[in-house]
Amino acid sequence: MTLSEYLAARQRQVDAALDSWVPSETTPPQTIHRAMRYSLFAGGKRIRPILCIAAAEAVRDDPAGVENAACALELVHTYSLIHDDLPALDNDDLRRGRPTSHKVFGEAIAILAGDSLLTLAFQVLSEMNGTSAECRIRLCRELATAAGTVGGMIAGQVHDLEGEGKHPTPELLEQIHRAKTGALLRASIRMGAIYAGAGEEQLEALSRFGDHIGLAFQIVDDLLDVEQTSEVLGKTAGKDAAQRKITFPAVYGIERSHRMAEAELECAHRMLEPFGSRARRLHELADFMVHRRA
Amino acid sequence: MTLSEYLAARQRQVDAALDSWVPSETTPPQTIHRAMRYSLFAGGKRIRPILCIAAAEAVRDDPAGVENAACALELVHTYSLIHDDLPALDNDDLRRGRPTSHKVFGEAIAILAGDSLLTLAFQVLSEMNGTSAECRIRLCRELATAAGTVGGMIAGQVHDLEGEGKHPTPELLEQIHRAKTGALLRASIRMGAIYAGAGEEQLEALSRFGDHIGLAFQIVDDLLDVEQTSEVLGKTAGKDAAQRKITFPAVYGIERSHRMAEAELECAHRMLEPFGSRARRLHELADFMVHRRA
Repeated sequence: MTLSEYLAARQRQVDAALDSWVPSETTPPQTIHRAMRYSLFAGGKRIRPILCIAAAEAVRDDPAGVENAACALELVHTYSLIHDDLPALDNDDLRRGRPTSHKVFGEAIAILAGDSLLTLAFQVLSEMNGTSAECRIRLCRELATAAGTVGGMIAGQVHDLEGEGKHPTPELLEQIHRAKTGALLRASIRMGAIYAGAGEEQLEALSRFGDHIGLAFQIVDDLLDVEQTSEVLGKTAGKDAAQRKITFPAVYGIERSHRMAEAELECAHRMLEPFGSRARRLHELADFMVHRRA
Repeated sequence: MTLSEYLAARQRQVDAALDSWVPSETTPPQTIHRAMRYSLFAGGKRIRPILCIAAAEAVRDDPAGVENAACALELVHTYSLIHDDLPALDNDDLRRGRPTSHKVFGEAIAILAGDSLLTLAFQVLSEMNGTSAECRIRLCRELATAAGTVGGMIAGQVHDLEGEGKHPTPELLEQIHRAKTGALLRASIRMGAIYAGAGEEQLEALSRFGDHIGLAFQIVDDLLDVEQTSEVLGKTAGKDAAQRKITFPAVYGIERSHRMAEAELECAHRMLEPFGSRARRLHELADFMVHRRA
């Protein structure tokens, strides 16, 4: 199977699982379920769920049911996008080439749709089959911490808000990034590994893989915002500079940012050595995440 | 111990547990932790956590550690108040006699503070000691369902938003209430009972107690909005009528609403019969909730 066949197969698997967890558009109250599905099925690349599944596959063959843990990650990611796009936060009208949730459903429903996706993520982890209560509660803890305020995703959003217009330093940049996108990407890898029963050393190696690939991913994200058009990105390009965000190109320049992303990618690959050919998909995903054009 | 001594002792217990779970105001990012604490320590009555603890006490003596499950309920309740008060939803400036979160911290931080409290609720349940992984995962599931979109708290908020200005029918009223406040009150009782290891029959009886007391509580809440001043309530009085909300007084009139609240209270008491003197505090709490003046 080529990487694009693998990605397509995993996307279908994740989409089917998401579809089974999210109430249908005919379940009342219909508005909220329509809004949840609008953002969830908007052509997202499913990078976090696929990383989760591939990490589980690096630990053992056929980790059946891991797609449910993967769903929880996509639910949290999508909630964060909806709330981030709100007028009070990034005030964005466009996401994945379509109007943002509050543009379509209004701010009240967009806020509640985000809340609903976050709540559903924990419902999925608590209800899913195929793994012990010990494992499920550990996954809940990983997700809550990664999404939280102490070094987690919300910490990153707050640092990001408060950093706008501040002097961009490497320290501030690292702090924002590690929390804002790094924590959830790291958790994606870790949750897959935990689901598959990884030992401590395996978990440590995969966590470090997650850190490196998370950093590389963010650098590329910042670079795309500078180098690509809104059309290609499916979201408003050039917003970081307009909002005076603290980004890798702003701190290190474009050339050096590209070199940093490649160096992080190298380190990420190295972390996978102990896994041999089992980690094939993680290697390929890492390259894909860093060399993407949108 | 009189009821007010009991309430004061339990409030202290819950506040101490909350204080231990919520990062301090000096933990970065400080803004978000200040905002979380501002709403959490605003003189709330802690009705949900105390119901949770009293339900556990009806099942067994000294259910040590149940205050952590109780904290998760208060975290979810407080998140819902912050988001409910936002300009896009109820647009309220006053809560518990103080300016609402978005008035003090701005909308962006208020949205993120709500998100943070919801996330922390699941972190607390996944990290707390004193009970098995099976029990903790069951508590996660109860809380996620009660806070969710299918008959849960968010369903109630959406029905409430969409109901504004609609013809108030008994059916619509019941649907809104059961979801909006009923689900979390029921979960408060159930989570305490589950924590304490209640059998199926005990859990069923306590769930029905929760349904009756939840309904009585909501009727009284609607009545207070009509009959009390903003000063006494610590929030804007008369808002329901101004926003053409579907309330018990609007559907049944004031007199009949009072009689309905008393009838529900009677039924609630009856559900506690099998528990004998162990349910003393639940009996007292039920009376307190229905006969409160604010």
